[in-house]
Amino acid sequence: MEERKSCQKTPCHDCDRFAAWYLLGGDEAEARAKAEDLCLEQTVECPEEILPAGFIQDQVVGRLEAFERTDGGAHRALVSFLDDVTGGELPQLLNVLYGNISLKKGFCLDRVRDCFPFWRRFKGPRFGREGLRTLLGVPRRPLLSTAIKPMGLPPEQLALLAGRFAAGGIDLIKDDHGLCNQPFAAFAERAGRCAEAVRKGSAQAGHKALYAPNVTAPADEVCRRARFAKQLGAGALLVCPGLTGFDAMRTLADDDTLQLPILAHPAFLGSFVTSPDNGISHYALFGQIMRIAGADAIIFPHAGGRFGFLPEDCREVADGTQAPLGGLRSIFPAPGGGMSLQRIPELLEFYGNEVIFLVGGDLLRNGAEIEKNCERYRKMVADV
Amino acid sequence: MEERKSCQKTPCHDCDRFAAWYLLGGDEAEARAKAEDLCLEQTVECPEEILPAGFIQDQVVGRLEAFERTDGGAHRALVSFLDDVTGGELPQLLNVLYGNISLKKGFCLDRVRDCFPFWRRFKGPRFGREGLRTLLGVPRRPLLSTAIKPMGLPPEQLALLAGRFAAGGIDLIKDDHGLCNQPFAAFAERAGRCAEAVRKGSAQAGHKALYAPNVTAPADEVCRRARFAKQLGAGALLVCPGLTGFDAMRTLADDDTLQLPILAHPAFLGSFVTSPDNGISHYALFGQIMRIAGADAIIFPHAGGRFGFLPEDCREVADGTQAPLGGLRSIFPAPGGGMSLQRIPELLEFYGNEVIFLVGGDLLRNGAEIEKNCERYRKMVADV
Repeated sequence: MEERKSCQKTPCHDCDRFAAWYLLGGDEAEARAKAEDLCLEQTVECPEEILPAGFIQDQVVGRLEAFERTDGGAHRALVSFLDDVTGGELPQLLNVLYGNISLKKGFCLDRVRDCFPFWRRFKGPRFGREGLRTLLGVPRRPLLSTAIKPMGLPPEQLALLAGRFAAGGIDLIKDDHGLCNQPFAAFAERAGRCAEAVRKGSAQAGHKALYAPNVTAPADEVCRRARFAKQLGAGALLVCPGLTGFDAMRTLADDDTLQLPILAHPAFLGSFVTSPDNGISHYALFGQIMRIAGADAIIFPHAGGRFGFLPEDCREVADGTQAPLGGLRSIFPAPGGGMSLQRIPELLEFYGNEVIFLVGGDLLRNGAEIEKNCERYRKMVADV
Repeated sequence: MEERKSCQKTPCHDCDRFAAWYLLGGDEAEARAKAEDLCLEQTVECPEEILPAGFIQDQVVGRLEAFERTDGGAHRALVSFLDDVTGGELPQLLNVLYGNISLKKGFCLDRVRDCFPFWRRFKGPRFGREGLRTLLGVPRRPLLSTAIKPMGLPPEQLALLAGRFAAGGIDLIKDDHGLCNQPFAAFAERAGRCAEAVRKGSAQAGHKALYAPNVTAPADEVCRRARFAKQLGAGALLVCPGLTGFDAMRTLADDDTLQLPILAHPAFLGSFVTSPDNGISHYALFGQIMRIAGADAIIFPHAGGRFGFLPEDCREVADGTQAPLGGLRSIFPAPGGGMSLQRIPELLEFYGNEVIFLVGGDLLRNGAEIEKNCERYRKMVADV
């Protein structure tokens, strides 16, 4: 292993570069060639021989800071980039981290490094774990969430469900992420009715509950819909950054007129984590990038539900949500994707208390028994 | 093969559903189970047994219209969705097409079907091939483009390059997609100087050239930067929808105050096309979805350059840019990614005339000879 002096400390407090680890395919020589290619491809996109000497060669081109063999026999490289190549803008940060090389095989973004001064340029989550706990008045136990569904129900029926969940003691009641502004459940009517129902149900239960409408919307509508939702009484927001772009979520998090916690949903992002020799790790994508982009919680499918995430993938997500990163707040992992009540004890064992459980369809079984199902859900975490 | 009557015609003019073909992994039984799973997962996200009868079961749930074995022995399914589940909004369209199943293996979006009335709900490319040819006054030959680079040059040097390319007869001169708003090349100064240089170089050559600054920017800046670019004299826009979200590009295309052609760059989208058992085909992603989202040309790496696209991948892109799709305009494939002048004859053979060639770094070799390189580039397409 070789490592340059400039990036030896973690966290690094005193340089003008940030860095990321990449897993590279092939044998040692191939992996090293990939690391060198990455330094050019992610910055200047030029053959080395035509690069001007000085600033560009010395600072703008990515710098191979370390290259090593992993325990599994693969290779990984730490590459640093000049802070200023991002212009402090999130879309260009993502471009530098994984823009062009997303088009090549054998390059995986494994994690970004805790380069303190750089990550401080991003505000990150406004609430994070602590802020969300304070908002809800739940200092210790896992938080409980559910989704109103299925798509196709009229607003009054969705609101009825939302109200019953709130009365049943659920902390966070979110739109199913497929609810947007359909003719059969227009945003304004749905969000208004659901916010009202959650307020009433919550008062009835003597328990604080937040409603999170889905503001995944056309680019020129995301902020408007979020502000409107707040006026209507929404207490949080659901957004799919894979559909809106990560920076749309960042604008919601940074907006001082909104100040609502954000639940991020992974729709349309799965292809980043499904290939063994391309993509972004669960740790970096769902843990780190989501935090940099302002999510307060990241929803993802827990192992053994309807999706194919493995336990180690879920562990990576959870680890990434809390690893030190420029002082950005830790956020909640929110495992869901076909979780049933009977799996809660296992999830508790896996995640501990710093988690939001997301149980959707299973609370709707035996229609008339929603309140009973909610009560069971609540009791499962009451004493932890 | 079984196919329901409602979706038998292509294009289909008379129903309230749209449809897409998916490639599904596993043996016949597994593939069929995946097709059925997809119908639920992309819409109601609920187990079938708790779905209300009537509208939701009959119309909202995706409908398996056809299931067949491909020539290669795999399986594919045609699944239709009620138009209204998208609410006419592009982010939700992408969600319905590939949101949750992006998180599962064995599901690939292969192509969307030409469901005429549905695709007509999207305006698509404002210019398309014909409009861009008219703007440039080039009725027949392939269009020539290049990029100003490398990142790290100051605005005056980027502008010098842009001017020389314009004087050399290049039609479209774009920012390298890594140029955003860095301290060493701030957007306003760079775009202003480059637009001016292209105007002058173009006048000098007696040839129409367009400058396309990169407006890949924070969500709340994309439109502002594009409008500012227009004021400064930009003749086109470069955007990376993988970084901004597809709908940000759509807002640029639909903006009547802008009316500038859009070159789309594939940064951060590669993971959709690199896995054999997950993702979106080159045809659907770079051909169809780019059109639906308003691109007038799609940049992608041609086979045998710095990237690993295969010739058949590139053929798919080209086919997707022109296949009938609700009457949306055909757009240009713009193969690049390390193309050299000596490969132009081969590219001409491959793509024919309906193409934008993108040669970047190769025009910069032998520094002083940019004009000569441009002349060579121009001559290669002069007589076709």
